[in-house]
Amino acid sequence: MSVRIDGLQYANWSEKIFRQMRDGGVDAVHVTITYHENFRETVLNIERWNRWFEQFPDLIFQGRTAADVALARETGRTAIFFGSQNPSCMEDDIGLVEVLHTLGLRFMQLTYNNQSLLATGCYEDEDTGLTRMGREVVAEMNRVGLVVDMSHSGERSTLDVIEFSSRPIAITHANPANWHPALRNKSDRVLAALAASGGMLGLSLYPHHLQGGSGCTLEAFCAMAARTVEVMGPDRVAIGSDLCQDQPDSVVEWMRVGRWTKRIDYGEGSAAAPGFPPMPSWFRDNRDFSRIAEGLRATGMSESEVAGLMGGNWLRFFEESFGAQPGKAKPANRAAE
Amino acid sequence: MSVRIDGLQYANWSEKIFRQMRDGGVDAVHVTITYHENFRETVLNIERWNRWFEQFPDLIFQGRTAADVALARETGRTAIFFGSQNPSCMEDDIGLVEVLHTLGLRFMQLTYNNQSLLATGCYEDEDTGLTRMGREVVAEMNRVGLVVDMSHSGERSTLDVIEFSSRPIAITHANPANWHPALRNKSDRVLAALAASGGMLGLSLYPHHLQGGSGCTLEAFCAMAARTVEVMGPDRVAIGSDLCQDQPDSVVEWMRVGRWTKRIDYGEGSAAAPGFPPMPSWFRDNRDFSRIAEGLRATGMSESEVAGLMGGNWLRFFEESFGAQPGKAKPANRAAE
Repeated sequence: MSVRIDGLQYANWSEKIFRQMRDGGVDAVHVTITYHENFRETVLNIERWNRWFEQFPDLIFQGRTAADVALARETGRTAIFFGSQNPSCMEDDIGLVEVLHTLGLRFMQLTYNNQSLLATGCYEDEDTGLTRMGREVVAEMNRVGLVVDMSHSGERSTLDVIEFSSRPIAITHANPANWHPALRNKSDRVLAALAASGGMLGLSLYPHHLQGGSGCTLEAFCAMAARTVEVMGPDRVAIGSDLCQDQPDSVVEWMRVGRWTKRIDYGEGSAAAPGFPPMPSWFRDNRDFSRIAEGLRATGMSESEVAGLMGGNWLRFFEESFGAQPGKAKPANRAAE
Repeated sequence: MSVRIDGLQYANWSEKIFRQMRDGGVDAVHVTITYHENFRETVLNIERWNRWFEQFPDLIFQGRTAADVALARETGRTAIFFGSQNPSCMEDDIGLVEVLHTLGLRFMQLTYNNQSLLATGCYEDEDTGLTRMGREVVAEMNRVGLVVDMSHSGERSTLDVIEFSSRPIAITHANPANWHPALRNKSDRVLAALAASGGMLGLSLYPHHLQGGSGCTLEAFCAMAARTVEVMGPDRVAIGSDLCQDQPDSVVEWMRVGRWTKRIDYGEGSAAAPGFPPMPSWFRDNRDFSRIAEGLRATGMSESEVAGLMGGNWLRFFEESFGAQPGKAKPANRAAE
């Protein structure tokens, strides 16, 4: 089987889920480890992951470089790559970019729906683009090899960073807005700029990003994938399932509300449906990636295109993105190279 | 020239000092990055080091494994290995042991003069040995490859940990108390147990640890080194200069007082001489290591013994100590191996 990589998950992790990753042949997953947590709280989350790595060494290990995906395949395990959905983890301190990278962070969203110190989130009324600090931080992320993720960012901020960043960026989990006009989905203009700059789109399976929500069919999802490949090219599209398996609804409240309001904000949900929506019947968990591969084949996509979407494209992006920037390398030792 | 490693320095770092390391042919240094700083403050200190690594890539880089000493020699640079002189950096959280190791910490003292959460310092009236948490933390340090350093610990705590630790420990900077009976120097009993367990003693050049203080002669120091080799064996002894170059006296006050008292504690100093003492005339800074090598040769020590003391012994100890414990390995990726 060709390489299989999921570009975003945030589950209530357990041995059951790690075993499902193995059952589904998932070689690597970008997992969210933090939202609104500050640095020390993010480190507590890393400590929790370290316990899982120690408890389940036959199932998972921490991924740091693209070579770890090959190691995962050789040893029958899943490589776990860390990411943050908001820059809270770096507080107001640019020096934490490198520290977080050393701890294994490989993706960081510049915003989570709201204005951050760095850029504007997709739920703000006004998007003022990359801030002064945002430019400094993006340059530092470029230097050390921490991928800019704009999944929850506003249109102007996203276009700004695609132009400003010296390395390709990612939108790890979102769909084209022309298929389903959610605030979190992306305009044709953003997708064109992303593709032209060598960036990546991970197609989301989170119901609020799907035409028809939880009732979206596999055929409709895969037809959208095929059209996105036509627009962006077969190398720029992959999967970022946004699987939030087994999470209690208290978690989606933390994701949406953090500590920025004392009121409830329903984000993509509503007062009538405040919790996590049910996943589509054809993608319950990690065991169902083969169904997506089948669905993509059924659209007439070539086998090499399917292999790209299912993981090959993420693997190439990992190879290009996680190391120090050539010519601006931190003085590396052997182990870091 | 054979490998040259200093087992402890805490200087007011600058380009001048990094150049002096190169002039002195120093391949690697264990540097103190933190005393009483908590985790977040320690990370700020790491951020400062990251800036130096970025500024002076031709002079220094961060060492993580023994192989980095060879890389330093090949590329004409000095490998900097991080250490802590107190466990404040891990707060009350055993999970920070692995996190600090990932950030490059390779030595941690269990105490700095006072009682800590882990063990008893050498200035306490009563030494109750390793605490309950101390045993847990030493086992975790053994697992990940973070060396226990007992330079500032009490006698019973030191003997306890030598027996309890499943890997050899270090006393990175101290001398035999039978040569100079300072509270910080170590008894024959400790040195015998240390040697028998495969541990290391780094001989200190800090005047308060020297017979005759700043006036101690090179000959007296080297004669002491030769006697220590006779007692501990030629493989167990090296240098840990405790060089505190260019530090203002405010720093020695922080080292001694931290935040544990509102009064002044003079530690090894006194009201009459509260600051850093002047170094011996024959060891001003990193450029003077060759004088020590010459002095050791003059005692009749063999060339291979001199090479061991000047760095070969630390290198072997680094090789044995900095990786995950065999059989208890954290699920390593390639880059960490």
